[in-house]
Amino acid sequence: MEAVQNEKGQISIHTENIFPIIKKFLYSDHEIFLRELVSNAVDATQKLRQLSSFGEFGGELGDLKVTVSLDEEAKTITVSDNGIGMTADEIKKYINQIAFSGASDFLEKYKDKTDDKGQIIGHFGLGFYSAFMVAEKVEIVTKSYRDGAEAARWICDGSTEFELTPAERAERGTDIILHIAPDSEEFLNKGRLQGILDKYARFLPVPVEFDGKVVNNTTPIWTKAPSELTDEDYKTFYRELYPMSEEPLFWIHLNVDYPFNLTGILYFPRVKNELRFQREKIQLYSRQVFITDEVKDVVPDFLMMLHGVIDSPDIPLNVSRSFLQADANVKKINGYITRKVADKLNDLFNADRKAFEEKFDDIGLFIKHGILSDDKFWEKAKNFVLLKNTEGQYATLDEYREKVQANQTDKNESLVLLYTTDSKQQHAYIESATRRGYDVLLMDNVIDSHFINALEQKLDKVSFQRVDADTLEKLIDKGLNNESVLSEDDKTKLKELFDQVLNNKMLNVSIEAQPTDELPVTITLPEFMRRMKDMSALSGEQSFYGNMPVMHNVVVNANHPLVSKILAETDADTQKALVKQVYDLALLSQNMLTGADLTAFVKRTVATL
Amino acid sequence: MEAVQNEKGQISIHTENIFPIIKKFLYSDHEIFLRELVSNAVDATQKLRQLSSFGEFGGELGDLKVTVSLDEEAKTITVSDNGIGMTADEIKKYINQIAFSGASDFLEKYKDKTDDKGQIIGHFGLGFYSAFMVAEKVEIVTKSYRDGAEAARWICDGSTEFELTPAERAERGTDIILHIAPDSEEFLNKGRLQGILDKYARFLPVPVEFDGKVVNNTTPIWTKAPSELTDEDYKTFYRELYPMSEEPLFWIHLNVDYPFNLTGILYFPRVKNELRFQREKIQLYSRQVFITDEVKDVVPDFLMMLHGVIDSPDIPLNVSRSFLQADANVKKINGYITRKVADKLNDLFNADRKAFEEKFDDIGLFIKHGILSDDKFWEKAKNFVLLKNTEGQYATLDEYREKVQANQTDKNESLVLLYTTDSKQQHAYIESATRRGYDVLLMDNVIDSHFINALEQKLDKVSFQRVDADTLEKLIDKGLNNESVLSEDDKTKLKELFDQVLNNKMLNVSIEAQPTDELPVTITLPEFMRRMKDMSALSGEQSFYGNMPVMHNVVVNANHPLVSKILAETDADTQKALVKQVYDLALLSQNMLTGADLTAFVKRTVATL
Repeated sequence: MEAVQNEKGQISIHTENIFPIIKKFLYSDHEIFLRELVSNAVDATQKLRQLSSFGEFGGELGDLKVTVSLDEEAKTITVSDNGIGMTADEIKKYINQIAFSGASDFLEKYKDKTDDKGQIIGHFGLGFYSAFMVAEKVEIVTKSYRDGAEAARWICDGSTEFELTPAERAERGTDIILHIAPDSEEFLNKGRLQGILDKYARFLPVPVEFDGKVVNNTTPIWTKAPSELTDEDYKTFYRELYPMSEEPLFWIHLNVDYPFNLTGILYFPRVKNELRFQREKIQLYSRQVFITDEVKDVVPDFLMMLHGVIDSPDIPLNVSRSFLQADANVKKINGYITRKVADKLNDLFNADRKAFEEKFDDIGLFIKHGILSDDKFWEKAKNFVLLKNTEGQYATLDEYREKVQANQTDKNESLVLLYTTDSKQQHAYIESATRRGYDVLLMDNVIDSHFINALEQKLDKVSFQRVDADTLEKLIDKGLNNESVLSEDDKTKLKELFDQVLNNKMLNVSIEAQPTDELPVTITLPEFMRRMKDMSALSGEQSFYGNMPVMHNVVVNANHPLVSKILAETDADTQKALVKQVYDLALLSQNMLTGADLTAFVKRTVATL
Repeated sequence: MEAVQNEKGQISIHTENIFPIIKKFLYSDHEIFLRELVSNAVDATQKLRQLSSFGEFGGELGDLKVTVSLDEEAKTITVSDNGIGMTADEIKKYINQIAFSGASDFLEKYKDKTDDKGQIIGHFGLGFYSAFMVAEKVEIVTKSYRDGAEAARWICDGSTEFELTPAERAERGTDIILHIAPDSEEFLNKGRLQGILDKYARFLPVPVEFDGKVVNNTTPIWTKAPSELTDEDYKTFYRELYPMSEEPLFWIHLNVDYPFNLTGILYFPRVKNELRFQREKIQLYSRQVFITDEVKDVVPDFLMMLHGVIDSPDIPLNVSRSFLQADANVKKINGYITRKVADKLNDLFNADRKAFEEKFDDIGLFIKHGILSDDKFWEKAKNFVLLKNTEGQYATLDEYREKVQANQTDKNESLVLLYTTDSKQQHAYIESATRRGYDVLLMDNVIDSHFINALEQKLDKVSFQRVDADTLEKLIDKGLNNESVLSEDDKTKLKELFDQVLNNKMLNVSIEAQPTDELPVTITLPEFMRRMKDMSALSGEQSFYGNMPVMHNVVVNANHPLVSKILAETDADTQKALVKQVYDLALLSQNMLTGADLTAFVKRTVATL
């Protein structure tokens, strides 16, 4: 065996080994072939337009366009353009050498003449070969724009061998003719091709014709200056993007050159209190070519609910998640969008408070989500995020503190904010609280349990208590005790009676002196435990708290006349029936009387009428 | 300009163009580099074992193993094996030529000697180059198993230039030393590497050592014959896969050679009535290398809730969705799994009906999902799918028809099956139905609304009616009318009174002769409308039905004594109060008395005590 020699050399790739891999795995979605070929055709026309503007092409540009045609019988799909075309030499250079990109070559050559590199889409020079994902044979018929150029035909059957011959073609331009392979005949379908074009070609900058109609809008409004656009333009474009949606609330026109290039329009939709957000509504473009509607990582998570388009040549075309996460531009874009959205919301708040309040039910979810996920956003949002009470009044955090602090500060100088998660279900409790002049916040959005936790962390000496978490005397404990009409002895008797009749170890009965206009019995659910259970239910996961048994407090109002009546009752059965009935009524108020107990209650009550 | 010449030639790929693309885009997850290098190392040891078995290697195999080591200071990750190693010539052939796969070469050479090609993982010969996704420099130190072989070192800094020199290495085998690039330093972390190995290398067939410990189980039970395994073996393996889960209900050992190669174990977990299924619990392997837990398309959708592993060399390694969908093997695998699952369920049903019933609450969701999505599955499942009634009794479709047809066939010879979606909420209605000897099915699973629709389509002359969809006289209309104690005149007066007091256009009041043990007033929700609304709510989408206003039927029981009392009442206020109270009680029974109305009802009732 020979000794190992010192050696330097070049790594090599053999075409016959790599070509099958490129054909099969270049893109995970085979439909991408049409995006690639149409983009190349658009490039070919854009290049000609540029050459003309540099004075290097003196002929007539004519109506530059791309045509896609389908011949079901011949099993071909053809993509044609009247752009620069290729000479036989250019075919050899750009087509026969895979990944030798014509676009980068072109950009290199003309880099001093144009800073508008945005007009050329191609990147790697691999796109053309995506044709082989669906075609068993690919034919190119092309004629260069150059004076006296001859047309050429290139054919390749998917092996690494090609054939180049003279051809007939009257005008400059290129036809790419795909002879579709048997396993890809799904693409020999008008509806399918129309669908792919609608998805990828909708806003390409050169007209694309298919089946006799132009399929694209070549100048979508995000490419224009905001000063040229009216509100109606924005709304019309929104309808174009989402024909079935309600009108958007407002929008932000994004436009940045440095340190990255990005344009776009983000719309705030009307989302209300929906658990399932309509995500994947932002479309990502690169130079007007649709790339994906998975904008995760590009757009901050809390803004995924926005609608609209983002167009940036700085976002890598071949989008893969881990790649996006690591990309420095993407991180900057993310921060920029957050800032722009916060500023826009702040402007709206300052410009027209009333209009902002009217929109708040729709945008509150975004704002709260943003506060939860981004401290920088919180720094701006804390001035304009609103709290809404059960009477439909809105207040900023500062305003609300001002409003309730006289009445809702407890003996420990802590501000207690009362809230309801369901103004219908907790109606009886809300009514009690408002009767005493307390304000009750409406926290019925899916995000509110997290929002409440966040506010308790961020705000000093503020706690939130759901309005049925305890008696009002204890929720906002001002250190004043109501006098009780009952003796300690009576209280003990009463507790024993209730414990005995209710006979349930998960009930914690207490006798408390409450105002006489409160119910004889009230059921309260301690805040901490309930909150943990709610959060656990929301997350959908099994958890320690989710599995804890439910402990209820049963508060008997020592001062209610009916309670004295119960104590005074001498017939044991009547007394028991009364206890049962006031307890059932308390359960009803808490929406906890159900099933057989409810049926029995209804029958019992019908019998008394 | 020259004329175009006829020409044939070869497409070429220039390494300097394609190499950067391979490095960047070979895999979307950069962590895959470790899977690839460890798989290669495993291959190198497997090859040596094979050579030994062919008699081509006469030396000591020793303990074949792979070692992964991390040097945080030097910023290197090293993957070592004591396999076949490489000579300088082999490096030149297999490493310096990208995509020239050593594995396929090896298989080609020994194809007559072994039909167990399953032991070699490598596919394309691209895997090694994934090292450059994370490394700025890659070093190979290797020594072939051949007698007298010299060790060699290969270094490449990610350009296309390599350097090959003699090296020192005492034993046969290969070290791949990655000098991690600054943007990939996340991988210089013990926990991170451990995590990647746990994910991809957990069941590799050769011991893989990291941080002094072997990270893998080299003979997972799916590679063994079912006859060698006990129930405890299956349960132990389940715990190994899902340490936090409850014990599985049962399992299916998959084992097929033709027309595709597949082994695996699918477990039926305990899922109960969960809206959020624990999907992504099936792991896909190829020759014991973990590939993905996204088994969509490989496993039928309704079996995505199963847990377990599938191992098949016939599933393409580079898994992309559209590719999987098109793959013929994948389609066959899908059908095979469905058939195996249906047969297993049928066996369980026949073998032990009682045990099957006990499991049904857990497996019903799978079975119903399968019936909805696959007609072939329905053909088998219609014999063992069970219906459960409110008393917890189970029956097959045939048994149930037998059981209720005498009592629940209406005048049109149609069988009416009563059901409840919530036995607590609809308790009063269930009680009425069972009092009359009707059976009520429990259909409270998230999938049941779809299941009911499917059964109505598949079964002849069978309709489902929720127990509160109408009065029982109309739900199962046998053409017999109850006598009414009220005159037509009284009925008209009564209807006018209710219409006037309730004063709500969305209520449809009717006076009907019902038995006296029914409530004075009942609220019913017509089946079709309610079902449409439920489906629409379930789908989470806005829809025509979801937005329709709710129409309720208010049925006044002409024969109830309280209704006669109301008619006879002369004081208008008292009469009105009675109407209001019986209506509120009907709302209560239907769980529709809420908010301010409920609070008022409770206060009113407290005042009467």
